[in-house]
Amino acid sequence: VTGVWSIVVAGGSGRRFGRRKQFSLLGGRPVLEWAVEACRPVSSGVVLVVPAEGSSASSESHGADVVVAGGPSRSESVRRGLDAVPADAVVVLVHDAARPLASASVFDAVVDAVTRGGVDGAVPGLAVADTVKTVTEVDGVRRVAATLDRRTLVVVQTPQAFRADVLRRAHREGAESGIEATDDATLVEAIGGSVCVVPGDPGNFKITTPDDLRAAEERLPAAGAG
Amino acid sequence: VTGVWSIVVAGGSGRRFGRRKQFSLLGGRPVLEWAVEACRPVSSGVVLVVPAEGSSASSESHGADVVVAGGPSRSESVRRGLDAVPADAVVVLVHDAARPLASASVFDAVVDAVTRGGVDGAVPGLAVADTVKTVTEVDGVRRVAATLDRRTLVVVQTPQAFRADVLRRAHREGAESGIEATDDATLVEAIGGSVCVVPGDPGNFKITTPDDLRAAEERLPAAGAG
Repeated sequence: VTGVWSIVVAGGSGRRFGRRKQFSLLGGRPVLEWAVEACRPVSSGVVLVVPAEGSSASSESHGADVVVAGGPSRSESVRRGLDAVPADAVVVLVHDAARPLASASVFDAVVDAVTRGGVDGAVPGLAVADTVKTVTEVDGVRRVAATLDRRTLVVVQTPQAFRADVLRRAHREGAESGIEATDDATLVEAIGGSVCVVPGDPGNFKITTPDDLRAAEERLPAAGAG
Repeated sequence: VTGVWSIVVAGGSGRRFGRRKQFSLLGGRPVLEWAVEACRPVSSGVVLVVPAEGSSASSESHGADVVVAGGPSRSESVRRGLDAVPADAVVVLVHDAARPLASASVFDAVVDAVTRGGVDGAVPGLAVADTVKTVTEVDGVRRVAATLDRRTLVVVQTPQAFRADVLRRAHREGAESGIEATDDATLVEAIGGSVCVVPGDPGNFKITTPDDLRAAEERLPAAGAG
């Protein structure tokens, strides 16, 4: 696909991302290599953002075209990745390095939604199976404030696809206003951009625990596991 | 504990609850028996609500003191369970039959919160690890409406504990107004009741897929698995 670049984010503060989870071995290869490889079919190029401290790790490309050092936050890491994306890229994908099992169809769906036009971004979303409530803390006790209508809720994943110009502007303005966003779509929404939701993939979970790693191991495609 | 009764809900329409999941074998015993047993330490008695159609299944007690047939919805099933709870019960717990691994400490926490006073109910809640957005559908396209502040969100589990009088009133009024609630706390909230959130247990997941069953099998306490 011409003009589509991907940013795989393995950097960040490590508060949320277990620092080493993306380097854990899955089917004999680091988790992040699977994430980079998953981007390949739809990408002209892939930028990998690695933790700034992991200089030994960053000396390897892990299959990416460009490797850059991340910043102190997830958003800052994506910004550094964006700086390495060629100026003529039309669509930019952002993908978590800790999601090695994203399917080709999820990549196709978000890229298609953005290239078709009418939206600035597309994210994979899953229905919420559990009851979700909002809480407020009163005198040290957490009380239920409201129960949300779960039919209107989605849990979002990566890859997330965006018009390159809109994502660049969203990150520029997000940096200026200091928004702490947990995904890139939030920054695009904050500047008034439109983001659509395509069906997510339950198998595209984020590796955050040893249990997740074992579950991922069982789901590896046979060809890649050797 | 005197005056605490538990309702284990295995009934309901089966749309959400895979109909047979609560009867699947876990460590050689039906999932719902583990759920009933988990209620025991804090309960004077346990009412089990089974699917109305499963008459062969309902002829077994599965360790409960009372077995009743469920209704067409989860709320209606709980109402039928409530009718079988003695009038002098002070606290009523509601627990999903598909959550066999709820820990004793979660049961203690919700019962303690209600018996301590000051609230009408208590639910276990887990922090939300993923980004959650609300969506609206415009011309058949699902668009992001807002990204929620996940620090204010909890995913709630069972067991949920309530003052018996408040839960009875909540279910009476919920039936009259026809609310389709996904948990009992929602009905209590709807009549203005106060519900607090205690720390949930990540291991207390609901069995909805074969993968869940396998994960539960690995977590069974050794003494019970034989």
